[in-house]
Amino acid sequence: MPLTRRQLIARVAAVGGLQAASAVMGMLGVGAGAQAAEENYAALPTASVGHGASVVVIGAGIGGLVSAYELKKAGFKVTLLEARERVGGRNWTVRRGDRVEYTDGSVQVADFADGFYLNAGPGRLPSHHQLMLGYCRELGVELEVLVNTSRNALVRPDLNQPALQIRQAVNDSRGHFSELLAKAVNRNALDQELSPADRSNLLSFLKTWGDLSDKLEYLGSARSGYKVWPGAGDQLAQKNDPLPLQTLLNPALTTALMIDEYPEFSPTMFQPVGGMDRIPEAFARQLQGQLRLGAEVLGIHNQAEGVDVAYLDRRSGRQQSLRADYVISSLPLPLLAKVENNLSTSVRQAIAQVQFGYANKVAWQSRRFWESDYQIYGGLSFINQEASGLWYPSGGFNQAEGVLVAAYNNGETARKFGERSLAEQIEISRQAVELLHPGHSHELRKPLAIAWSKIPYNLGPWINHAVAEPDYQLLNQAQGRVYLTSDGLAHSGIGIWQEAAAGAARRVVRHLFERAQSSPLKQTA
Amino acid sequence: MPLTRRQLIARVAAVGGLQAASAVMGMLGVGAGAQAAEENYAALPTASVGHGASVVVIGAGIGGLVSAYELKKAGFKVTLLEARERVGGRNWTVRRGDRVEYTDGSVQVADFADGFYLNAGPGRLPSHHQLMLGYCRELGVELEVLVNTSRNALVRPDLNQPALQIRQAVNDSRGHFSELLAKAVNRNALDQELSPADRSNLLSFLKTWGDLSDKLEYLGSARSGYKVWPGAGDQLAQKNDPLPLQTLLNPALTTALMIDEYPEFSPTMFQPVGGMDRIPEAFARQLQGQLRLGAEVLGIHNQAEGVDVAYLDRRSGRQQSLRADYVISSLPLPLLAKVENNLSTSVRQAIAQVQFGYANKVAWQSRRFWESDYQIYGGLSFINQEASGLWYPSGGFNQAEGVLVAAYNNGETARKFGERSLAEQIEISRQAVELLHPGHSHELRKPLAIAWSKIPYNLGPWINHAVAEPDYQLLNQAQGRVYLTSDGLAHSGIGIWQEAAAGAARRVVRHLFERAQSSPLKQTA
Repeated sequence: MPLTRRQLIARVAAVGGLQAASAVMGMLGVGAGAQAAEENYAALPTASVGHGASVVVIGAGIGGLVSAYELKKAGFKVTLLEARERVGGRNWTVRRGDRVEYTDGSVQVADFADGFYLNAGPGRLPSHHQLMLGYCRELGVELEVLVNTSRNALVRPDLNQPALQIRQAVNDSRGHFSELLAKAVNRNALDQELSPADRSNLLSFLKTWGDLSDKLEYLGSARSGYKVWPGAGDQLAQKNDPLPLQTLLNPALTTALMIDEYPEFSPTMFQPVGGMDRIPEAFARQLQGQLRLGAEVLGIHNQAEGVDVAYLDRRSGRQQSLRADYVISSLPLPLLAKVENNLSTSVRQAIAQVQFGYANKVAWQSRRFWESDYQIYGGLSFINQEASGLWYPSGGFNQAEGVLVAAYNNGETARKFGERSLAEQIEISRQAVELLHPGHSHELRKPLAIAWSKIPYNLGPWINHAVAEPDYQLLNQAQGRVYLTSDGLAHSGIGIWQEAAAGAARRVVRHLFERAQSSPLKQTA
Repeated sequence: MPLTRRQLIARVAAVGGLQAASAVMGMLGVGAGAQAAEENYAALPTASVGHGASVVVIGAGIGGLVSAYELKKAGFKVTLLEARERVGGRNWTVRRGDRVEYTDGSVQVADFADGFYLNAGPGRLPSHHQLMLGYCRELGVELEVLVNTSRNALVRPDLNQPALQIRQAVNDSRGHFSELLAKAVNRNALDQELSPADRSNLLSFLKTWGDLSDKLEYLGSARSGYKVWPGAGDQLAQKNDPLPLQTLLNPALTTALMIDEYPEFSPTMFQPVGGMDRIPEAFARQLQGQLRLGAEVLGIHNQAEGVDVAYLDRRSGRQQSLRADYVISSLPLPLLAKVENNLSTSVRQAIAQVQFGYANKVAWQSRRFWESDYQIYGGLSFINQEASGLWYPSGGFNQAEGVLVAAYNNGETARKFGERSLAEQIEISRQAVELLHPGHSHELRKPLAIAWSKIPYNLGPWINHAVAEPDYQLLNQAQGRVYLTSDGLAHSGIGIWQEAAAGAARRVVRHLFERAQSSPLKQTA
């Protein structure tokens, strides 16, 4: 069946996405214009377009690092200001000896064994985050598989019932639903929607899909695991009994069942070997002449021929100022709101509307009982308790010990959790482990809690919802010589993910490229 | 809600399996007797029980290696005979310079770049294969994640239709089925099975599970991916259009949808870093004084006071013989059938019943277009064509090149495929790549085909079905001083998996321990 060129491209696009379609279009001699809608994925110019124009980039999180790195490559004169003594922003990996200071004065010092770490912020790189994976390749950051899904992990939606293995919840629910749907088909309840051929095809599909008996009943499935695994000699298999439908219809179960079907959470996923901060460190190595640590920005003022940036040099305690042709602020908008500026009233009002969301993590060093006793290697368990989830380590499998994230919550649960004392946060985390892994909480040592709302220079993990129009469009425009790039200025997930930070930064950088080329300004440096 | 001890154990067993229950029982002071049904998982004695009794183990695949290793640890005098010049049996990793000789005289020499390999036999270690994972830990074999599931991988059940992304097939089928089931519930077609509360709970569950609209319609889902991914600035998301139900009801689609729900294929899975043969090599390092390579066994004869084993020393061309107190044959039963022996007529007849199954692999070195152009990192794609499947490498992500397994078939398809010429096998594999990844088959280089039915000293990948009773029980008994351990003598998957080989071997070893302790025989060596 020969295809027209148009059909071929459409089919490839349907399967392989625009990148694959683009590859085919290249083969077929079709222009690349059709890809314009996904400008993020195209390479930035490597030719010198900056002509030495100066740019101050504020904030050395992923957005600021990507901005500074791409601008430097393109011939701009870049200064990257970062309030802290480290780069990365929310990309923060905590290791032995690192201090965690809360705005309320609490201080913790991480005491994990050497080589162990907590990714306090982002911990995952999905397959489709091609910008971040591309930067890892470009900058030599070694990746390993991040296991986000383990069918041996647990879910306990109801604290009055025992925990369920996710394997069993996933497959027993599919089995029950298949049996019910098959019954409905056989009772002719869906004849409006289904032709006789459809009905017949659907029934045989459901038999396999739900692992139904010849009578189309769900009687349990090997997919749901075994009480006794099949083995040698007389070790006959005994399948798990199916869970009752009513046990499975708990709304608190759905996250555990569905999370890995969202593209952000579905396999294959990656993490840098040794900690997520390998990525900002790799950028920083490329920006050694540009980066100023301990530089807390106090003011941003557009002027006729440049932008003035005032900052506190925290090392000397002195206030400093810089003038540049352009400024890129990569500060989260609620932090930008605290910086003195002469942006327009409507812009300031739009920024003031934006609020932080909430998230917390609590981590422990422990014997890897989840591997040896539960065969859980990586992945997440879920519990209907304040800690919300357990996140098992994807590095160092089969070693004696590891770092278990034994609370990871967000939203209103996280707001309340964050207001608790450190001791309470740690105790709730310990209880969650005991509820999912009875008898094992005594193996937990060296707790470390991260309440993002209390971390100076962050004050939150992400913003609480997308920036609505018309503010979204307004803040995405150049504000005189100042550009904003941050959470909420990308449609791709309110800045939860590093890919959104990189994509938003590259968009702003691209605009600066165009501006620098079309109207070279008097250079102020 | 306090639990009785019995309730606690039952609940833990329901969730964590017998190992977890056993751990709790240990804590509670309950004896370990309840675990007897899964004797495979208990540790073997490390005390010396062999008292120097001699054992000849035939075949240095996983079954023979495990037998010899455990017997040596327990104080037996072990000789391990292997016909080939390498250990591992079907655990065979092919690298540059390795010769692949077929019984029909065809010869291939692998030409992959240094560091690249094909696991011609087993390639996966599931999480619940605790024996194999335990031996890897004990013997220092480094593991990495084997990615068996990629939601970006493809399935093409109908060659007249374009390939589907598995992500879309999985989530669109669930969406359609959820909509249909919700309709049936609302038409009261399932009132026999569901109370009013059940119906209400099921409807709200299906809304989340299937990602249905407020009207409980399936209109597509972000889980099924995007035509345009959400991005920075004005890059708005465009979800994929849902596939029609009729496209999804293809029986050739079900393997792709369900494979990773079977415990053998579900995440988390592992592979040894550098090739599966790191495992037999690690055993062999422990058996340097015991292992005789190039020793092809010709005869096994039970005598009153020992067993005589005749073998051809292929290096010298001379026939040799050994006498031992016991023999363990780990040969696949169809190979054992070719060895002269004085086993009983019924045993010989039972062995003669067993036939090999079929499987083939074809591998290529190639640019990693599946990663760069399709964002497929590991996992399997499926096609309704003789090659059956593509298996993407789980090691070396993001490198320039890798080894793609571009045919992996079994059953009747594999029998026919195996009868084809080498050139035809390779061409079918190339066509499968072109059908799944149009325009990329020209990137394939250095093909290597493995038709297991044509590999000397294997002649098959596994036996074609389980050994039926009463033969199963008969062959699992000691045959005088001879023990059999192999495919088909374990309930756990007709020997497809190394875990079954290890479990069957450990069962036989355990019987030998008991026999050596209860009635120490005159030692013949």
